[in-house]
Amino acid sequence: MVKYGKLDFVSGRDPAELQLIEWVRRQAARRPRPRSRLALGIGDDCAIVRAGALDWLYTTDMLIENVHFLPKTHTARDAGWKALARGLSDIAAMGGEPQFCLLSLALAPWADRRWIAGFYRGLLAHGVTLAGGDLARADRVMADIVVAGTVPRGKALRRDGARAGDAIYVSGQLGGSALGLATRRGPAWSRHKRPQPRLALGHFLRTRLRSTAAMDLSDGLSIDLRRLAKASGLRAEITLPPLYPGASPEQALHGGEDYELLFTAAPRTRVPQKFEGLPLTRIGTMRNGAAGLVTLDGKPLPPLGYDHFR
Amino acid sequence: MVKYGKLDFVSGRDPAELQLIEWVRRQAARRPRPRSRLALGIGDDCAIVRAGALDWLYTTDMLIENVHFLPKTHTARDAGWKALARGLSDIAAMGGEPQFCLLSLALAPWADRRWIAGFYRGLLAHGVTLAGGDLARADRVMADIVVAGTVPRGKALRRDGARAGDAIYVSGQLGGSALGLATRRGPAWSRHKRPQPRLALGHFLRTRLRSTAAMDLSDGLSIDLRRLAKASGLRAEITLPPLYPGASPEQALHGGEDYELLFTAAPRTRVPQKFEGLPLTRIGTMRNGAAGLVTLDGKPLPPLGYDHFR
Repeated sequence: MVKYGKLDFVSGRDPAELQLIEWVRRQAARRPRPRSRLALGIGDDCAIVRAGALDWLYTTDMLIENVHFLPKTHTARDAGWKALARGLSDIAAMGGEPQFCLLSLALAPWADRRWIAGFYRGLLAHGVTLAGGDLARADRVMADIVVAGTVPRGKALRRDGARAGDAIYVSGQLGGSALGLATRRGPAWSRHKRPQPRLALGHFLRTRLRSTAAMDLSDGLSIDLRRLAKASGLRAEITLPPLYPGASPEQALHGGEDYELLFTAAPRTRVPQKFEGLPLTRIGTMRNGAAGLVTLDGKPLPPLGYDHFR
Repeated sequence: MVKYGKLDFVSGRDPAELQLIEWVRRQAARRPRPRSRLALGIGDDCAIVRAGALDWLYTTDMLIENVHFLPKTHTARDAGWKALARGLSDIAAMGGEPQFCLLSLALAPWADRRWIAGFYRGLLAHGVTLAGGDLARADRVMADIVVAGTVPRGKALRRDGARAGDAIYVSGQLGGSALGLATRRGPAWSRHKRPQPRLALGHFLRTRLRSTAAMDLSDGLSIDLRRLAKASGLRAEITLPPLYPGASPEQALHGGEDYELLFTAAPRTRVPQKFEGLPLTRIGTMRNGAAGLVTLDGKPLPPLGYDHFR
């Protein structure tokens, strides 16, 4: 999800708005109910809620017409698929198992029943239980998806667990989604429209590899790695990540919506080169230093990824 | 929430759309994951998910500019209060205890930081933990709230539990919200803008009174009672409910957003006249007969309450 915590980085943002978001976070933190079960609130891929032996993960993601999808270029099924894929990617990033989803759907007048049916088909194609939701009419289509998942208590992969010396990895190749959005054709365009949440990989990272930190790449490596580094109180040194065929270094470094996983592992962890055919590539190392600073080949990498508030 | 299940009543609706909603419900029901924890899906105030000794309740509600609130007449705090009040009312209707909420907020260009801060203040005034959410830009303000609550396993008050012979009750007086919306002044207008979720009453109905069925009055008595009766496979005979001072019988029967509780109790249950100062009034009896039929003083009462899809 676009966590409130995501909004706390600095490049080119209105300081007043920054203060506001920080204020919201403080207000929310100040008012936990006496018996609150909240283990992790605003600021990671999912909120974590304690319930016995399990931690429940919750993530919420909006999909808005003309912001996150275009009716002219995305089929109804594409939109429905993407709406849920984004939330599932957040569950994957924490190593969780999806349990169910809720869908709130505001429908524009142009959305006829064929479109609506296609949207649901695309969403349900993920195989996750749709437990309920809300329906309304609006000017534009807006879908808000909540996905709930579970991990054993205390076991969720978080952004704040990286330690100095940990190796930094990414799954897959980056920049494909940005390339697809720019060219609107070929496999890159399909990749943009039908992102694949890395649920099996997330499970592997949590149970076998025991990654120290993880998150999904939704807004671009430069901005997302900055968030992970900041949450962990470290800086990050990287080299160029693997490029999607045809993608530019800029698309790989700053392009959003690849929905690959970014993760760290202790230096002595043996990370396989591939997981179920998906490359896992070391791109750098976490270091002590200015929290949130990312350097590429020794030079500061500005966080140019997508921010909804820029 | 405006459950998909809410959309299954018949008055004046496009049959094709009805079929679509029924299709969604069937599709969702057909695809539970093998180990699904879902105890109750689409069709009640909340979805119910099993987790050990507790049942978790989830409800989702959209608040859309110019549909559910007007920037000119509702302050930011009013909007924030109402956004969460609606979800809390669903938790109350099932006898649950709120645990946390998630907020997805799409912000229109006119919503400045002062408005946003006011919105959060209004929302947080309910004292419920805000665990996370999503932020985006859009043409209009749209808020989607998820509220999670808990009840002991199997104990949630549902719509489908009423039995023939059960007495029908409402809390408070009806029509105040509709009167307020029509007049835009006085206590009725305040009542419209600041609905009070009946959480303590819901808890009382579940633990002490052992109500057989309950739901909240969000769309109007005529349509909501029809839903309860239909879910329980019964018809309902009622007389005129208590009127909010100044409200017309029509406003009390068909006006939405009173957020009082509608509930049934076994014939021998002793229901107090008031709960914490709030009147509890018997308005009728559940009977065997055409499921969903509601009669007022012996004549069929058409479901004229608010439906988002009419």
